[in-house]
Order: sequence, then structure tokens, then C-alpha cells
Amino acid sequence: MGDEEQEGIFLGIDLGGTQLKAARFSANGTREAMENAASGAGGDAEEIFSALCSTASTLIGGSRLRGIGVGVAGLLDPGSGRILNSPNIPALSGFALRSRVREAFGDKIFVRMMNDANAAALGEYFAGAGTGSSSMFLLTLGTGIGGGFVIDGNLWTGAAGVGAEVGHMCIRADGPLCHCGARGCLEACVSGWALMRDADQIAKRDPKSAIAELSPRTPLSLAELASAGDRQARALWENAGAMLGTGIANLMNLLNPDRIVLVGGLGGAGDLLFEPARRAWESQAFKEARTSTSVKPGVLGEWAGVRGAIQPFLEK
Amino acid sequence: MGDEEQEGIFLGIDLGGTQLKAARFSANGTREAMENAASGAGGDAEEIFSALCSTASTLIGGSRLRGIGVGVAGLLDPGSGRILNSPNIPALSGFALRSRVREAFGDKIFVRMMNDANAAALGEYFAGAGTGSSSMFLLTLGTGIGGGFVIDGNLWTGAAGVGAEVGHMCIRADGPLCHCGARGCLEACVSGWALMRDADQIAKRDPKSAIAELSPRTPLSLAELASAGDRQARALWENAGAMLGTGIANLMNLLNPDRIVLVGGLGGAGDLLFEPARRAWESQAFKEARTSTSVKPGVLGEWAGVRGAIQPFLEK
Repeated sequence: MGDEEQEGIFLGIDLGGTQLKAARFSANGTREAMENAASGAGGDAEEIFSALCSTASTLIGGSRLRGIGVGVAGLLDPGSGRILNSPNIPALSGFALRSRVREAFGDKIFVRMMNDANAAALGEYFAGAGTGSSSMFLLTLGTGIGGGFVIDGNLWTGAAGVGAEVGHMCIRADGPLCHCGARGCLEACVSGWALMRDADQIAKRDPKSAIAELSPRTPLSLAELASAGDRQARALWENAGAMLGTGIANLMNLLNPDRIVLVGGLGGAGDLLFEPARRAWESQAFKEARTSTSVKPGVLGEWAGVRGAIQPFLEK
Repeated sequence: MGDEEQEGIFLGIDLGGTQLKAARFSANGTREAMENAASGAGGDAEEIFSALCSTASTLIGGSRLRGIGVGVAGLLDPGSGRILNSPNIPALSGFALRSRVREAFGDKIFVRMMNDANAAALGEYFAGAGTGSSSMFLLTLGTGIGGGFVIDGNLWTGAAGVGAEVGHMCIRADGPLCHCGARGCLEACVSGWALMRDADQIAKRDPKSAIAELSPRTPLSLAELASAGDRQARALWENAGAMLGTGIANLMNLLNPDRIVLVGGLGGAGDLLFEPARRAWESQAFKEARTSTSVKPGVLGEWAGVRGAIQPFLEK
């Protein structure tokens, strides 16, 4: 207790569209306790913020809080700590999260906000699959596709903090329409929502297909169907994997990072996704690039972002 | 003469498929003299190297040489200074340029080799259109498409020195075949050779078209034909511009650099290329990204690489 009294603790929080995950870390980055709650994203901003404060208070207990890091799905203004736009938690768009956290927990603590994919990238880089690399690009493969690019321990976020939006790299001009308004974005070709769009089209066109009868129809159930040998489900994953591999080949040729780390729920499909992806990047990336960039799955699972959110507070 | 005796001079060299360009610089980076010769790329490696030495000796005269920087079209091994692969000057593949330069000009001088697009990027960043930016991505729009990414004054070249190969970023899966073996690379959609491929196809299909009768058939003559109102030539440039804009939008979303600088011969087409490009990136890149990344033409022209090649010797 003596050391902890002196050194204090940090809280890492990952505020997603469904879940609020939080953990308490010692001053050297050791995780001491975790909490998992509903994020209340259906409610208004005050309800979401109140749930966040309650989870945080439980984790803090009687310890001296030194800093709170928050990874949040959406676009942030790095200057003000305001959430500019959060498609998965629309109630938070415009919410001044950083200053509200300071009001609630004291204005002497460090508060750091970052995009959730960037937080996951920092987590895997310092404490996961990126350990030992100098540069690492992380791809989050979920309902959408996010990215984080770490160079020598620092996030690359670009001129407006928008950088690493790999989900909106066009890989198929004239391809399917994306939520962002453009066509053929990586996310419109391979993502949870793109898979569901394609599966729904098959179900509509072919109401007697196994895909049409699939209930619930999710990426996971589609993967089970494909593993059981269903031809249409396999073709969906084959296409998704090829598109993912094209995106990875682009990152190899354009950035040639030491490591590319893949995290997120779609990875649950395993080789259904990764085998066609590997075939694509092996045939599309330069030999010098693909042999010097290794591709690895993340190791921190859904806790990568919570760990990454406190990284700015730790000594390197 | 007194200062120069003490401070010595640097030589910058740009060794391309057609031309050898070289210049002599004072110790503070002021250009003092220039030479332009045929690179002799049709000959063997010794002939090319001999032409380089002769041009260099002319520029050095009686001054004290402190360093030679060479930008060369091709893939280099940063460790050995050996040219791994040079599609435009095949005779140089495998040539140990750096050690041969040291043998010829003395082993006490600095010798630095880099890819020609990377050299142009350093030149524009420190002495051209990139001045004042923190991060800059340069695109060379010529027979092929090259790239250079400068972050805080340093080239980003990735794990194997292959980075920034933007010409081989796929923007059109299932698009036209590229020289590299993949499909739909930026360079296979917009470049000098891609334009000529498309023009030749039109000429073959429609032997009475203005494009078929164009002699010589070059990107420049195609641009003149388009400016004169030829519908088929305009459509070629419209498509090339849209593809270039898609590539630029990708760089904005993925890297969001302060500045994107466009250099190279295709730029001679002016708004025929840049207007459709602008329409594409304005509709495809995130507002936050496209408003914080400015797109500018280079200002050093074909001398950017020569200036950039000596940048590593200068104090920043």
C-alpha cells in the first residue's frame, strides 16, 4: 500500500458502441483490476458519462488517481478533447469528454483521449503482438475497419489527427458503396457490415439457401456455415480474405512497417479469412516488402485498447 | 575561394533511365553549377559509371569534394549501397555503386545513395514545395509512379527500405495488370505507360481516330489532342485524373500528411489531369483529412532529386 499511495494508479477505458471496458493499472503499467459494463450507448450523453464515472469510481476505490486514458470509437479533436463524430455512439457527438472527466475526477489528473483503434495499436505495440518492432500498423477487423500506425513508439495521426483511417482506403474503384459516401473502401469490401450486406443479398436472391435460413445471421454463424462446407458462405469469406490481403499488400508496399497486427472479431473466422488474405498479399506485395513485414494476430484481445489508453502516462 | 577551400563542396546526382543530371553545391546547400548528360543507360554498367565519373569530375574541378549523393531509379540495399533492381537501367542491377564511387573519388568522402523518388521528396521538402510542412508525401508522375514520404525531415523508407511505393498501391482490384504482376496498382491506372497502353488500344480498335493518327503518340501529344477537344483523348485524361485523385484520397485518409506534392512529366497536362483528380479526392477523402492536407505542384522541376540527394550531408 505504501508504494501505491506514493505512485498512484492510472485508469484505462475503452468506450465502445456496446461495451464499456475499464481497468486499473499501477504506475508501471501492471493491470490490477478490470471492469466490463454496458456502455449505455442507446441513452443520452449524460447517461453514458454517468455509467463511465460509476465504473471508474469502483476501480479507483481509495487509491490516488493520477490519470485517465480513454479510447473511444469516433473522431476526436486532439486540441479540445471533444468528440467530433462517433458513428457507434451518436449521443456523444460534440460531447466535451475530456473536460467533463476533469470536472468529475479532479483537474490535477492527466486525461488523455484517443481513437479506439489508436488505443488498441498502442496497447499491442507496447504490451502485445507489436513488442520488439520499431514500426507497427494495427488493423481492427470488426463491424467496421479501423487502423493505428505506431512509429518508434509514437502514434502517427497526421495533420488533423485523422491518420490511419485504413478502412477508407479505396482498393476497388467502382466497388461497393461505403457508409462514408465513397466506393470500394477496404471497409466496404471486407468488414462485419460488408459481410452481412453480401449475405443478405444472397438470402434475398436465393431464399432456399443455407445463408437465408441462418439464424442469427452474423459473421460468426457465417463462418460456422462455411466451415461446415457451404459453398456460398465459403465464397463470401474467400472474397473477404482476398480483399483484406489486398489491403495488407498496400500497407506493405506503401509503408513497409516491421509488423502488421490484426485484431477484432472477424479474426474469429481464422483461416477462412486469413488463408485467402495471405495468398493475396503474397502475390501482390513486393518480395522485399512482404518478407520484411510480418503479419501477426493481436495477443491482448479486446483489452488492447484499455491498455493502450494509459500508454501516454507511462515512461518509455 | 578561401571559404570554399575550407568548407568544400557536395555533388548531387540524379541517375535516370535517360538523363544523368548533376549539380555542385556549397557546404550550405547553394547550387553553384549544373550538368546534364545522357545517362548511357543502353550501355553496360561500366559505361554508365564512366559517364557519371566524367560529369562529376567536371563539376568538382579543383574544389575539395566532401560528399556525393546519388538518387537512382530502382530498389537499393541501404546496407551495402548496392542497386538491387533497376527496371529503367537494367545494366545497373547488382552494381555496387556506393563502393565504386568511393574507389573513384576517395574513401574519405561521404557517399549516400537513395531511390530517385525519395531524393526528389527530400529536395522538395527542404528547398521546394514542402517547405514549412512537417510531413509531406511526394508523388512522381512519369512513365511510372514513385513516392517519397518525409516525416519531420526524415525519409520514411520502412523495414526494408521499400516504403512509399505508392505506384503499387492497389486502387482497383480486378483492374488492369501491372508490370509488377498485380492488378489495379495506381501505376497501372494512371502513369505514362498506362496512358500509352490505353491510347494504343483505342488506335487499334479505331484506326481512323485522331489518337490512331497521332505521331508521335506521347502523353504530351495526347494532352494537346485533348485540349483541342478530341473526345477520346479527353476521356483518357479524365480517367487518369480520377484514378490519381483516388490515390491521393487514400494518402489523405491513411496518412493525412500536411502536404502532398506532385512532380513529374504527366503534370504537364495541367488541369486535364488535376481537375478530375481534385473532384475525386474531394468526394472520396474525409473532410477533416482533405482540408488539412494541401496538394501542391513541385517547384524544383526535374532538379528536385539532385538537390535532395545531398540533403543528408547538410545541417538541418
